[in-house]
Amino acid sequence: MLNASLNRKLRMALIGGGGAGFIGKVHRTAAQLDGRAELVAGAFSSSMDRSRETALAFGVDPARAYASWEEMLVTEAARPDDERVDFVSIATPNFLHFPMAKASLAAGFNVLCDKPMTTNTADAETLVRLVEETGAVFALTHNYTGYPMVRQAREMIAADELGEIRAVRANYVQGWMWAVDPTQPAERGTWKDDPRRNGPGATIGDVGTHAYNLARYMSGLQPAEVLGKLTTFSGRQLDDYGHALVRCLNDALIMVTVSQVTHGRLNDLSIEIDGDKASLSWRQEEPDSLTIRQTGQPQRIYDRAPGQAHMNDSGNAACRIPGGHPEAFFEAFANVYSSAYDDMIWRVVGGDRDPRSTIYPNVYDGLEGVRFIEQTIASSKANSVWLPLAAR
Amino acid sequence: MLNASLNRKLRMALIGGGGAGFIGKVHRTAAQLDGRAELVAGAFSSSMDRSRETALAFGVDPARAYASWEEMLVTEAARPDDERVDFVSIATPNFLHFPMAKASLAAGFNVLCDKPMTTNTADAETLVRLVEETGAVFALTHNYTGYPMVRQAREMIAADELGEIRAVRANYVQGWMWAVDPTQPAERGTWKDDPRRNGPGATIGDVGTHAYNLARYMSGLQPAEVLGKLTTFSGRQLDDYGHALVRCLNDALIMVTVSQVTHGRLNDLSIEIDGDKASLSWRQEEPDSLTIRQTGQPQRIYDRAPGQAHMNDSGNAACRIPGGHPEAFFEAFANVYSSAYDDMIWRVVGGDRDPRSTIYPNVYDGLEGVRFIEQTIASSKANSVWLPLAAR
Amino acid sequence: MLNASLNRKLRMALIGGGGAGFIGKVHRTAAQLDGRAELVAGAFSSSMDRSRETALAFGVDPARAYASWEEMLVTEAARPDDERVDFVSIATPNFLHFPMAKASLAAGFNVLCDKPMTTNTADAETLVRLVEETGAVFALTHNYTGYPMVRQAREMIAADELGEIRAVRANYVQGWMWAVDPTQPAERGTWKDDPRRNGPGATIGDVGTHAYNLARYMSGLQPAEVLGKLTTFSGRQLDDYGHALVRCLNDALIMVTVSQVTHGRLNDLSIEIDGDKASLSWRQEEPDSLTIRQTGQPQRIYDRAPGQAHMNDSGNAACRIPGGHPEAFFEAFANVYSSAYDDMIWRVVGGDRDPRSTIYPNVYDGLEGVRFIEQTIASSKANSVWLPLAAR
Amino acid sequence: MLNASLNRKLRMALIGGGGAGFIGKVHRTAAQLDGRAELVAGAFSSSMDRSRETALAFGVDPARAYASWEEMLVTEAARPDDERVDFVSIATPNFLHFPMAKASLAAGFNVLCDKPMTTNTADAETLVRLVEETGAVFALTHNYTGYPMVRQAREMIAADELGEIRAVRANYVQGWMWAVDPTQPAERGTWKDDPRRNGPGATIGDVGTHAYNLARYMSGLQPAEVLGKLTTFSGRQLDDYGHALVRCLNDALIMVTVSQVTHGRLNDLSIEIDGDKASLSWRQEEPDSLTIRQTGQPQRIYDRAPGQAHMNDSGNAACRIPGGHPEAFFEAFANVYSSAYDDMIWRVVGGDRDPRSTIYPNVYDGLEGVRFIEQTIASSKANSVWLPLAAR
Repeated sequence: MLNASLNRKLRMALIGGGGAGFIGKVHRTAAQLDGRAELVAGAFSSSMDRSRETALAFGVDPARAYASWEEMLVTEAARPDDERVDFVSIATPNFLHFPMAKASLAAGFNVLCDKPMTTNTADAETLVRLVEETGAVFALTHNYTGYPMVRQAREMIAADELGEIRAVRANYVQGWMWAVDPTQPAERGTWKDDPRRNGPGATIGDVGTHAYNLARYMSGLQPAEVLGKLTTFSGRQLDDYGHALVRCLNDALIMVTVSQVTHGRLNDLSIEIDGDKASLSWRQEEPDSLTIRQTGQPQRIYDRAPGQAHMNDSGNAACRIPGGHPEAFFEAFANVYSSAYDDMIWRVVGGDRDPRSTIYPNVYDGLEGVRFIEQTIASSKANSVWLPLAAR
Repeated sequence: MLNASLNRKLRMALIGGGGAGFIGKVHRTAAQLDGRAELVAGAFSSSMDRSRETALAFGVDPARAYASWEEMLVTEAARPDDERVDFVSIATPNFLHFPMAKASLAAGFNVLCDKPMTTNTADAETLVRLVEETGAVFALTHNYTGYPMVRQAREMIAADELGEIRAVRANYVQGWMWAVDPTQPAERGTWKDDPRRNGPGATIGDVGTHAYNLARYMSGLQPAEVLGKLTTFSGRQLDDYGHALVRCLNDALIMVTVSQVTHGRLNDLSIEIDGDKASLSWRQEEPDSLTIRQTGQPQRIYDRAPGQAHMNDSGNAACRIPGGHPEAFFEAFANVYSSAYDDMIWRVVGGDRDPRSTIYPNVYDGLEGVRFIEQTIASSKANSVWLPLAAR
Repeated sequence: MLNASLNRKLRMALIGGGGAGFIGKVHRTAAQLDGRAELVAGAFSSSMDRSRETALAFGVDPARAYASWEEMLVTEAARPDDERVDFVSIATPNFLHFPMAKASLAAGFNVLCDKPMTTNTADAETLVRLVEETGAVFALTHNYTGYPMVRQAREMIAADELGEIRAVRANYVQGWMWAVDPTQPAERGTWKDDPRRNGPGATIGDVGTHAYNLARYMSGLQPAEVLGKLTTFSGRQLDDYGHALVRCLNDALIMVTVSQVTHGRLNDLSIEIDGDKASLSWRQEEPDSLTIRQTGQPQRIYDRAPGQAHMNDSGNAACRIPGGHPEAFFEAFANVYSSAYDDMIWRVVGGDRDPRSTIYPNVYDGLEGVRFIEQTIASSKANSVWLPLAAR
Repeated sequence: MLNASLNRKLRMALIGGGGAGFIGKVHRTAAQLDGRAELVAGAFSSSMDRSRETALAFGVDPARAYASWEEMLVTEAARPDDERVDFVSIATPNFLHFPMAKASLAAGFNVLCDKPMTTNTADAETLVRLVEETGAVFALTHNYTGYPMVRQAREMIAADELGEIRAVRANYVQGWMWAVDPTQPAERGTWKDDPRRNGPGATIGDVGTHAYNLARYMSGLQPAEVLGKLTTFSGRQLDDYGHALVRCLNDALIMVTVSQVTHGRLNDLSIEIDGDKASLSWRQEEPDSLTIRQTGQPQRIYDRAPGQAHMNDSGNAACRIPGGHPEAFFEAFANVYSSAYDDMIWRVVGGDRDPRSTIYPNVYDGLEGVRFIEQTIASSKANSVWLPLAAR
């Protein structure tokens, strides 16, 4: 059965999700998609009324709706074993990730946290230390790593099917900035242009860390240094366009291109990886296929098709239904949750799983993402010099 | 909140889902995706052990797992108001749909039933009569009608944006038949080649009714007569390939093409609709976009992007997350459930919804699908003569 | 060298090409693309002024421009060996193909003729007889057979790489009819809605014969009978939409779908072929790739890439430049010419070529195309009965 | 008529084209495609036998085949007006471009030259001076500028339809390097890895100058400085992979990405241009369509469809046949020739054309391309510093 060794659903608390954004709904839906966990508590909003309303809408007992996340952590930590939440999901503006994650870990909970993990490296390092001390499960929702064909590609590369990786081009291109009316209070992204609440990197943090994480996750390349060029075309304070070029320890190059000012692009994350045996390309908006190319041979389209000969263990394990029945964003997000659940259960009851698995993005990835933002910005400000970039 | 007027989740019982197939998982996941309903009982298998195991795996109280669906209906009907299931989902081989649906209706339950609805017209007409008598909600899981861009297209056509519809080409093409090893017991489709358990039409029933229903759902065309040519290429008893040409009351033509013997095709349902103002095309494996064409103008790609100017009410209502974050099979399936939930709640507490809405496929669609199968087969056997095909 | 054994360019005369249409330019450009032939004479228009103007524009000596094609044939036939044209290309409305082709053959010329070959079967049979009697080269410009990946596919099928062919779906879909203003004199297609000048089948003749020919050319299937359903949606006299279903001798099915009333489609000829080992699909508007599918395996995209391992002799021979440097309509058209040139030269100087090669569409294909039109129309008029369809 | 004011075809001489490469065939075919010019002389090879053979194969009088290009220039220059060639096309390894172009200009001929124009800036500046002194027409075969949808896009941008251009991403990605067997004498690219014959930049010169030129041609942006990072993954001497980031005078960014080591890519030149009103994307391997996007609106696919409302003058003028009948590499190449012909004729007989038109790539583009190579290499060697890049 699901969570067979644990013999129950995991219990989830959510911080955030009561506002206009969609990310709360994504967390709630993804976390519960497979029936392995249940949302039982939440500090959905700092308004008690709205938090209770959200609880009702999300099917949560209003008695476990809170207006204060600090209060929630204290109250929930005090509950008996068979009620207490197992993990806290954090879906709030960037500057809140750190205090919430820190307190959640301190209160003994596992954590699922939105990215970027913190707004500076010092805070990120604090979280790394706390995770190491507590032994808690900490997962960062670089959700694109949950797509079956991404995990398939990662295992293919690890198995040397592409040969030595020489180059990666990861592009994350959106256009919603042009839909923001600067004379109006914004629904989306008010805090995203406020350095205090967002952190120093806007687009490089919002989408750039996803692209960089995906490149690292799939390719396994180890970074050495980064050169950045960020700019702003839409008149906002923070960056909305740019490039970060990463030189790796093996001299491979990763080019990360980010934009939120490319008219009409929705959520266009794509990646191309060049090995000396084969190359691949994948695109988030058509996530169910992966293109593999070898010079001199026909292109091969690997459909997400569990059980077919071209699928490997990672790819198969991330699928729910047969090929041609598309799986998409919620399902990929749910795969990140599900991988973290495996570790949470292992932590409680043990089992045959390797807890050092890196199948889901963890606190070290979080630290590396924050470093990536900081060094890219620093390089850009220093007229695009190369600056060191340490691997996690 | 979700189910605000009802103030609770709907309660679901599932018949089937304990076997090797994936459709039980699809029903369970889709039904609960938005937190509007909860699976609380099931006759998952005729083996009590397996039914209980499935209950555990699905997070259902094993006390409400049954080995006999008849027993489940009796027992659940006898429960008090605040426990009794609201609806029964039927996910079993075709020949069982009729007795299960009939008994469920008779026991006072709403019904969600797999397609085709029955194996013959007489049974289908019985169900129509029962639904009319009981006033129950009856939805047929022609799940492809739940895709946002399908509903968007349907409203566009109803609003005359394509002009008068002249022609439709609906193709449902798969290749899995070549993966079936005739010397081995089959995982998939054992009963699908047994006329007694499957009904008389195999591929025409399995995928053809989906394609025909989609054509009818989107275009609103009214059928007049059908000409069929079915055949078998893979050596099985029943049809695995063919065409059904439907002439409509306004002389429009719907061509339905079905195959389960086209090598390498997974679940390739596609549709093209020609109006005298514009044409459209849509493909299930890339469900988030719709192509609109007008002679003399650029092609327009309508992305699923809720809130954008090109989206209409039906399209918007069927979306959960912003454009570029793909939604797929589970979400579309969940939309059929969700539309049926609206009617179930209306039935209990009333509200401002029109219960005659046809946003989800209903018992009349079920009847028409069975007629479509029967007349296509009859035409094909009679050397492809035109036979009458009544609208629902 | 080009035409090495002949040691000179072939000499071409063109009938038609002086009007508003583009087909004259296509013939001229394609015929001369590789430097194997030279346009030296033409009856470009029935107006002497316009014929001379066209000659000048086409780089032809105005002394060899004619207003009468009959006069041209007589005059050119009387020229000495080192001046006389080798072949006559016919690019005129359908009803003129027969008298022009007949007279050209009678005058001793090889012929390249637009399709459909004639407006009735009797005329087509007359041409077959004349070609057999004269031994002339007669090629029909079913130009889509000239695409490298079409010829590649044909050889693959002949070599049994797809197994036994079970089904073909050939679609030729256009939308230009909606751009025709019925209140204005038309640039395109005036004669195409005039049964006397066009022949009895409009869209079925204009594009349907291409689709049918392509299906036959690629698959090698032999027809047994045809069932047609043609209709008219745009208010014109002749058909503008319909289907022709062909049952083959081996019980394979070919479905030909034609439309000139599908808004926004330009020249959308596509074909899917199902064998019992593999399936393929190809589309004229993206002619440089061919998709090969096998159940259980990744899709393979065969790029037009001469010399690569997946290319066969027919594919390679039809390419001029490396993969990724797209070849298109003119080049495919030129390949039909070039194959006919091979036979013309063989006829003069012999060589190691098999003159019975069917690499280019010939007079028997022309006859079969006319039969296809006639029987499809007859079937449609007889309420879609099956009628015999003889192979060439 | 074609060349109406001149009243004859232009006469062409070709240097190169007798070897194993395909570029000689491309020049010959493209130059003569529309019947505006005729190849009448050539120094096809330094072997007299091979030069004569090539002449025969190309339909050229063997008496005008030369083994020495110097001799050809002298001999042809001495011919009378009605015989003398009008222009010389240079299709040879890079290091020969300069002496051949210089001598051709000195001998009074117009020149069509392959790119890069020279192997260093000093030589490029010499050619600029010579072109200015002689008034000759000098065109560089950046052939991708000849595609109809590229010219369409250029005019759209010039007409401010995309608003101010902020960013360009131009990628030219190939994989043929992996097909080169280093132990064997190479068919392709022997001289391409020899700095003396190729010049200092390999991939950056071979494909990078095309990508950069295309970005400049379409966007009209003016460069200010460049930062380069080139590397080698395949073991050869010269670069095979890298990036050049160009900052423009208006602070727009052009990112040029080049690779000849991406497995399986054929000739994958693509470009994305971001304006503050709209964005566009185009890809050379599917050249007949252009995608236009605006945030909040459906994507629009602009098909190459001469005469349709979305097409502008530049787009229409570059088309030969209706939409849906694909035009490709040869036709685009021929458009560069044809634009140069317009200027050659204007030079002889005048007319209403503006001779300062930049519709075809000219000697200033050639100079800029050489500067681009040099500064990108210099930047890369200096650890990726910004270096000035002057506009033409």
